[in-house]
Amino acid sequence: MRMAELARRSGLSVATIKFYLREGLLPHGTRTGVNQAVYGTSHLERLRLIRALARVAGLPLHTIRTVLDALDEGPSVLDAMAITQDALVGEVEGSEPDTEARRRLAEVVRARGWNCEPGSPAYLAAERAIADLQAEEFDELLAHLDDYARIADEVGRLDLQAVASLGRLDVMIRGVVLGSVLRRTLLDTFVLLAQQHHANAPRVAEPVAIDGS
Amino acid sequence: MRMAELARRSGLSVATIKFYLREGLLPHGTRTGVNQAVYGTSHLERLRLIRALARVAGLPLHTIRTVLDALDEGPSVLDAMAITQDALVGEVEGSEPDTEARRRLAEVVRARGWNCEPGSPAYLAAERAIADLQAEEFDELLAHLDDYARIADEVGRLDLQAVASLGRLDVMIRGVVLGSVLRRTLLDTFVLLAQQHHANAPRVAEPVAIDGS
Repeated sequence: MRMAELARRSGLSVATIKFYLREGLLPHGTRTGVNQAVYGTSHLERLRLIRALARVAGLPLHTIRTVLDALDEGPSVLDAMAITQDALVGEVEGSEPDTEARRRLAEVVRARGWNCEPGSPAYLAAERAIADLQAEEFDELLAHLDDYARIADEVGRLDLQAVASLGRLDVMIRGVVLGSVLRRTLLDTFVLLAQQHHANAPRVAEPVAIDGS
Repeated sequence: MRMAELARRSGLSVATIKFYLREGLLPHGTRTGVNQAVYGTSHLERLRLIRALARVAGLPLHTIRTVLDALDEGPSVLDAMAITQDALVGEVEGSEPDTEARRRLAEVVRARGWNCEPGSPAYLAAERAIADLQAEEFDELLAHLDDYARIADEVGRLDLQAVASLGRLDVMIRGVVLGSVLRRTLLDTFVLLAQQHHANAPRVAEPVAIDGS
C-alpha cells in the first residue's frame, strides 16, 4: 500500500508516520520511485503497535524504542510479555524494601502456586502496593489479599486467552499493551458500578460469599 | 490531644495541619490558652481522610473541599459513596456519546442485574472504556465483557465488605478512597503476576475455565 493508505488504515497522520520512519521505529518501505515507496501489512501492524504504546499506554519515545528493539530480536512470547510488562510498570520508585510486605506477597504467591519473577518490576510494584496498604493500616483489605489474588488470577487468564488468540507476536504485544491499559480502565469502572450496586443493596454489611455465585 | 500529637498520629507536619485549619478543611480545636488548643479523635480521622484524598488519590484542594463539604451534610453511606466516586473519577472528557458502547454497557449491566446510576461519572467512564476498546478493534476482549463484569462484581463486593466494617462515615469514606486507589494498584500488580504465571504455563492458548477453580 502507499503512504496515504498506510496513514488511513493506521489512524496516524502522514507527518507522524514520517517521523517514526526518520526515528527508525518503522522500517522503510520498498522504494518504487524517487519519492514513492510501498508498505506491507507488517508496517501497518508495527504502526498500530507504536500507536498503542504511545497513545494508549502513554510511553515516552525512548521506552517505545526499547520495546521495539527487544521485539526485533525475535523473543519468545514469554520474553516479549516480560519486556512489555517492564515498560508498562516502569521503574518502581523508592526501592526501600519492606520485609513485612515482602513476606506477605511471598505467602500470597506461594498459596496461589504462581510461577513469577521475584525481581521483576511487577513483583516489586506488588510489594510496594502491599506496603502502602500497611502504611495506611488498611487491615480490612490486607486480610483479603488471597481473595484479590484469586480474582487477579482470573483476570490474568482472561487477558492471556484474549491475547494468545491473536497469533503474530507484534499483534500479541499490542494486545498486551491494550489489555493492560484499556482493560484496566474497563475493570476499574465496572468495579465502581458494582460498588454502586452493592452499596444500594441492604446486605452490604453481611459476610460475602466469594466463590462466584 | 495537642497539635504535636495530632501531627505525629496523622503523619502530617504541623505546618500542613495549620494550612488545613486556615483553609477551613479541618475544624478548629477547643481553645485552652492564647496559642493552645486541644483536638479530639474526630480531628485525627478528618486529617487521615484529607491525607488519603490528597496524597493517595492525588485530588486537588478544591475537590477535597467538595467532598468534605458534602460529608458535613451528613449524607447516607450510599450518597457519601457516590460523592467520593464522582470525585475520584472526575469529569469524563470528550462526552461524545458512542451508541454502540452505550448499548453494550446497558446489556452488561442488565445481564448482571446491577442497580447503578446511568448518568454517573463512573457509568460514563465505563462507556468510554468500551468505546476505546471498540476504537482499537480489540474484539477478543470485547467478547468477554460479561466475564470482566462478573469479576468486577466480586471486587466491588469485597471492597464494600472491607469498608462496611469500618463503622464511622468519615472512616468509611477514607476506606473507599484507599480501597479505590490502593486496591486498584494492588489488583493491577497481582494481575501482572498472574499474567507471568499463565504465560509461563504451556496451556496458555487453550480455552480457559472461568468459574473460579
